[in-house]
Amino acid sequence: MVMRMKTIKTAVVGASGYSGEQLVRLLLRHPGVELVALTSRQEAGRGLGEVMPRFRRWPGVEALGFMEPDPSAIAATGAEAAFLALPHGVAAEVAVPLLAAGLVVIDLSADFRIEDAAVYREFYDHEHPAPELLAEAVYGLPEVHGDRIGGARLIASPGCYPTSVILPLVPLLRRGLIDPSTITTCSMSGVSGAGRKASVPLLFAECNESVRAYSVPKHRHLSEIEQELTRAAGEPVRLTFTTHLIPVTAGIHTTTYASLRPGVGEEELAEAYAEAYAGAPFVRLLGAGGCPDTKNVVGTNFIDIGWAVDGRTGRVILLSAEDNLIKGAAGQAVQSFNLRFGLGETTGLL
Amino acid sequence: MVMRMKTIKTAVVGASGYSGEQLVRLLLRHPGVELVALTSRQEAGRGLGEVMPRFRRWPGVEALGFMEPDPSAIAATGAEAAFLALPHGVAAEVAVPLLAAGLVVIDLSADFRIEDAAVYREFYDHEHPAPELLAEAVYGLPEVHGDRIGGARLIASPGCYPTSVILPLVPLLRRGLIDPSTITTCSMSGVSGAGRKASVPLLFAECNESVRAYSVPKHRHLSEIEQELTRAAGEPVRLTFTTHLIPVTAGIHTTTYASLRPGVGEEELAEAYAEAYAGAPFVRLLGAGGCPDTKNVVGTNFIDIGWAVDGRTGRVILLSAEDNLIKGAAGQAVQSFNLRFGLGETTGLL
Amino acid sequence: MVMRMKTIKTAVVGASGYSGEQLVRLLLRHPGVELVALTSRQEAGRGLGEVMPRFRRWPGVEALGFMEPDPSAIAATGAEAAFLALPHGVAAEVAVPLLAAGLVVIDLSADFRIEDAAVYREFYDHEHPAPELLAEAVYGLPEVHGDRIGGARLIASPGCYPTSVILPLVPLLRRGLIDPSTITTCSMSGVSGAGRKASVPLLFAECNESVRAYSVPKHRHLSEIEQELTRAAGEPVRLTFTTHLIPVTAGIHTTTYASLRPGVGEEELAEAYAEAYAGAPFVRLLGAGGCPDTKNVVGTNFIDIGWAVDGRTGRVILLSAEDNLIKGAAGQAVQSFNLRFGLGETTGLL
Amino acid sequence: MVMRMKTIKTAVVGASGYSGEQLVRLLLRHPGVELVALTSRQEAGRGLGEVMPRFRRWPGVEALGFMEPDPSAIAATGAEAAFLALPHGVAAEVAVPLLAAGLVVIDLSADFRIEDAAVYREFYDHEHPAPELLAEAVYGLPEVHGDRIGGARLIASPGCYPTSVILPLVPLLRRGLIDPSTITTCSMSGVSGAGRKASVPLLFAECNESVRAYSVPKHRHLSEIEQELTRAAGEPVRLTFTTHLIPVTAGIHTTTYASLRPGVGEEELAEAYAEAYAGAPFVRLLGAGGCPDTKNVVGTNFIDIGWAVDGRTGRVILLSAEDNLIKGAAGQAVQSFNLRFGLGETTGLL
Repeated sequence: MVMRMKTIKTAVVGASGYSGEQLVRLLLRHPGVELVALTSRQEAGRGLGEVMPRFRRWPGVEALGFMEPDPSAIAATGAEAAFLALPHGVAAEVAVPLLAAGLVVIDLSADFRIEDAAVYREFYDHEHPAPELLAEAVYGLPEVHGDRIGGARLIASPGCYPTSVILPLVPLLRRGLIDPSTITTCSMSGVSGAGRKASVPLLFAECNESVRAYSVPKHRHLSEIEQELTRAAGEPVRLTFTTHLIPVTAGIHTTTYASLRPGVGEEELAEAYAEAYAGAPFVRLLGAGGCPDTKNVVGTNFIDIGWAVDGRTGRVILLSAEDNLIKGAAGQAVQSFNLRFGLGETTGLL
Repeated sequence: MVMRMKTIKTAVVGASGYSGEQLVRLLLRHPGVELVALTSRQEAGRGLGEVMPRFRRWPGVEALGFMEPDPSAIAATGAEAAFLALPHGVAAEVAVPLLAAGLVVIDLSADFRIEDAAVYREFYDHEHPAPELLAEAVYGLPEVHGDRIGGARLIASPGCYPTSVILPLVPLLRRGLIDPSTITTCSMSGVSGAGRKASVPLLFAECNESVRAYSVPKHRHLSEIEQELTRAAGEPVRLTFTTHLIPVTAGIHTTTYASLRPGVGEEELAEAYAEAYAGAPFVRLLGAGGCPDTKNVVGTNFIDIGWAVDGRTGRVILLSAEDNLIKGAAGQAVQSFNLRFGLGETTGLL
Repeated sequence: MVMRMKTIKTAVVGASGYSGEQLVRLLLRHPGVELVALTSRQEAGRGLGEVMPRFRRWPGVEALGFMEPDPSAIAATGAEAAFLALPHGVAAEVAVPLLAAGLVVIDLSADFRIEDAAVYREFYDHEHPAPELLAEAVYGLPEVHGDRIGGARLIASPGCYPTSVILPLVPLLRRGLIDPSTITTCSMSGVSGAGRKASVPLLFAECNESVRAYSVPKHRHLSEIEQELTRAAGEPVRLTFTTHLIPVTAGIHTTTYASLRPGVGEEELAEAYAEAYAGAPFVRLLGAGGCPDTKNVVGTNFIDIGWAVDGRTGRVILLSAEDNLIKGAAGQAVQSFNLRFGLGETTGLL
Repeated sequence: MVMRMKTIKTAVVGASGYSGEQLVRLLLRHPGVELVALTSRQEAGRGLGEVMPRFRRWPGVEALGFMEPDPSAIAATGAEAAFLALPHGVAAEVAVPLLAAGLVVIDLSADFRIEDAAVYREFYDHEHPAPELLAEAVYGLPEVHGDRIGGARLIASPGCYPTSVILPLVPLLRRGLIDPSTITTCSMSGVSGAGRKASVPLLFAECNESVRAYSVPKHRHLSEIEQELTRAAGEPVRLTFTTHLIPVTAGIHTTTYASLRPGVGEEELAEAYAEAYAGAPFVRLLGAGGCPDTKNVVGTNFIDIGWAVDGRTGRVILLSAEDNLIKGAAGQAVQSFNLRFGLGETTGLL
């Protein structure tokens, strides 16, 4: 006899994009979840297996279909939690009524990641649609804010790039091992990060055999990266950050440089990481000289982190790899969901 | 009546690798070249079209085949110039007798790039095999050393990464627009850069859907990069440089950061580039905000350079893209060859 | 309180190749399996997470390492079942002592797939190493031989191509809906099918942006394909079959043509498939006009099958897609294992 | 002194798609061509180098820009020839006034490939827009209709798939070596074949790691394939033909099967090919057992053809590879242009 875990009735709002699809994949197999609503303006009325043929014949799929993203209809399903995989701006509009209806909201958009509405406006080019909620939103990076996620009503799940930049830096900034004014970062992302939208620059024939930087010099994700690094450093942090599109479907690799404080060496770095991530089930520390490879993390919620001291220049080189749609989006959101509902951090993710 | 250009009898030594193949491709169509010898230890005795089926039926191919890399046999063909596409260490051994036999040698290996034999030993882990030749070797980067190439007997053609790192930096270092102690660089290369050798980590199934850094923190190419940046800056330059393998066959993208000297802005940068590369037919300046894409340079000898000022941090972001096998290897070698033999810099390359 | 399924002590012999890796992945998460031995001549003595970094931090991985493929040492672990992911010829040599030691053997090589030792010799160019075992070996295609797998001591798991060719044809041949003398097949496979071995033609730079046929006209897998089609048709079947290498890591797509018997139309085809695969949890029938896409099956044990009547020529077009390493290898082997040990066909596979 | 070839003033109408881009690439370097007009509704008013950055700094590019596709404006440039790289239906509308203005028209669309307007309607779902021109249009496959191209006013350049299917079959059908009722064909194409249009199914993240058939069972190209095979066989030919999308940018591989007439063997096949393509500079015969690889033809106007006799079934296996945008589109059109204007078949193409 198997005793089933208590299940949380859950909705995925905006389930037809790439992050939505990964949410559905993870939640279908999550022993603590009952999927009660999938929404998609475009696919409303169609069955899940019809829209996403890869899910056909999975247990539980036949009963599932897409509905309109109507907040009261979502609430009427009895959903206790809703994941929002919507464009920024739109997400906040849906979050407000869902919160009012008593749901816990885990938002994968940028809408509630930035504490300061002025910074949001600077980076996203419009007024924040629900500034009154910013104070209570929790930045859903479990390895950093795990203690605050448990009681949250509104979780702002981090961006894909920020996760890969913040996690390698936080332990070093907290201990003052690096000079925060010297941080420079290069990230490379798979094309799924740009979303499932008809667009010539995202065509196979445009992205294959191609590498290019974009959003130079001020990618929107800088806003949340700097917010979190500033918090860790205890002083304002500004960094240079460039994103590149490379021909893989999934995966982000981030390489970061910073000058070490005098006297800091491999031992201090190893100690900082070991202590910071001792209890983090999804952070895999590859150690000094370890070079993460996206193919080892794609399809999982792991982030792999390696580092090296460049003795010739006094800098540290930080390397990280994650699946942009999982640890960088859907998986991380589920990880926060697990913490929020007391389900065990790794449930449905290993 | 068409008057043919005078042709130089030319050998390609080590013609069966990826750089060798590009040399053959370019030289077959070069109006100033008569290919008189192709060597390959492994393919000796076989026809060119048999070993490289893509060249079958090209004009002139049927008569060509591979011979052993025997210097006296090469000299006996009447070759006036030899391109060496051999591993480091081996190249010097072949260069010595070919130079002695009166040939001009254009070496694509690292053997003659480093002026200081001690630096060579530090980075390549063995004694330099022909240190007496280092003084006369010319670093074959035509945009920087064009004036010295014309009279050279021994041209050391630059590495693929160094070309993409040095060309964006030299104009800024020469004018003192950036602080040389703040340079950090990220490069991403296609897999052909690792050569045509049986190796599990280079298999399709290992490289596809994968990104990873390698040779961290001290890639061998740092030695020539720092030599050339030091020369341009007029003071010692040390930088942090990381190479990444990405799933494209050809192409290198390099992103470099450096702190601007106080008061330097877009105008000074644009002026520096315009002046430095006014006469450079293969440098395409994309201007401020321009983001090069490897797919626009692959198959050509162009390097595309863009830049952006990150006003928030006072840094400049430099972006460059080239074909690692052409501007990063075979094409650049032919460009030097053209200068050496007075054939017009772009002959056979446009 | 959760009552655990009874677990079978299991060994994977030859665990360091691509099929072995998928076996390890599936068995690590299989609730009815306790992995007691992983062997690899090359990796003996190393930890699983060290050799395959993608498995680091998975539950149960830390205790696992590779040992030499010594049959008595394998038997001494108490293993009740062994999966063999070894080259043909080698597999039989290991199977004999393991069977003698009382283990159930599930062999992923070709060694026990062919009932007739003469056919084996014709296609594999050497004498069969253990012909005395051929009579009792069961061809482990659960959708066809499910009833015989339950009692088998030696299961010969089918090849990747054969699975994709046989499953779409068997229902039509059994009912006599097509003319067996008219079958022609084109298969396209990802590069992982060629194995994890250092080889120039399998390099990324050789396979990317490339499509080519190979093993023309007599691929070894024809032997088992024809054996099974002959069995289904009740008369000798010979077909033309060509395999192509395409630049994907995983996945096989097979397109098959055959002339329909007079009077046969879409209705008869649909009925034949519905009846044949009503109880087959891993066969997804896309129906008339359905075009399977490998990306919907990669990472799963599903095979997707679609078909279309070409009324202009009287032929049927059969389309199938599977993951060559899962339904085409490791997943199918686990499916047979489940049937053999009465664990529920889909255990650990959905 | 170099005497220049007489140049033909030439227009490319619809120059911003993938075929248009290849036309521009080839014609820019064609010694017998002066490009006088490039049209694109979408890009009118912009410079060529701006729209297609890969052409920046090529000789002659700076002066070129896009104009509206207005036939009288095109004629006013003095153009003697126009290549049309437009969607079917649209091409005919532009061809009529250009022909009236005295230009030679080389149309890369399907509009003038089908001699029978009823067949056109059957396959293209609309009435033919200019049926009066069908009688004089020449199917621009130089290896088959070379003798008629020289005097043509309107050349209908073949489709990408048809070129790869027709050329391997015509020599065998003409000599009656195969049974025309038994032909079955599988083609695999790179994604550029679908054009440069915003479309979700053509996104990198949808095409990468994916293989799928499409337009089953009646691809539009069947109409021209069957027309030409019927002509070669001297009797009506119907075949089964399936197209597959694979993750390469460029390249088509086609595998065709047919039953050999009794007594036909390798010798007769070799002889048929040798005789048919003795004077064809772009057909490379790989011989019996030769397996073409798209990577050997991509970027060129070659088509590589191999074949094998499957003695077990009495069928022949035909294999061909071409660049879908060059021999399958732009290159073949230029080849016809060369024949039409007496410039030497290979001019600008080798």
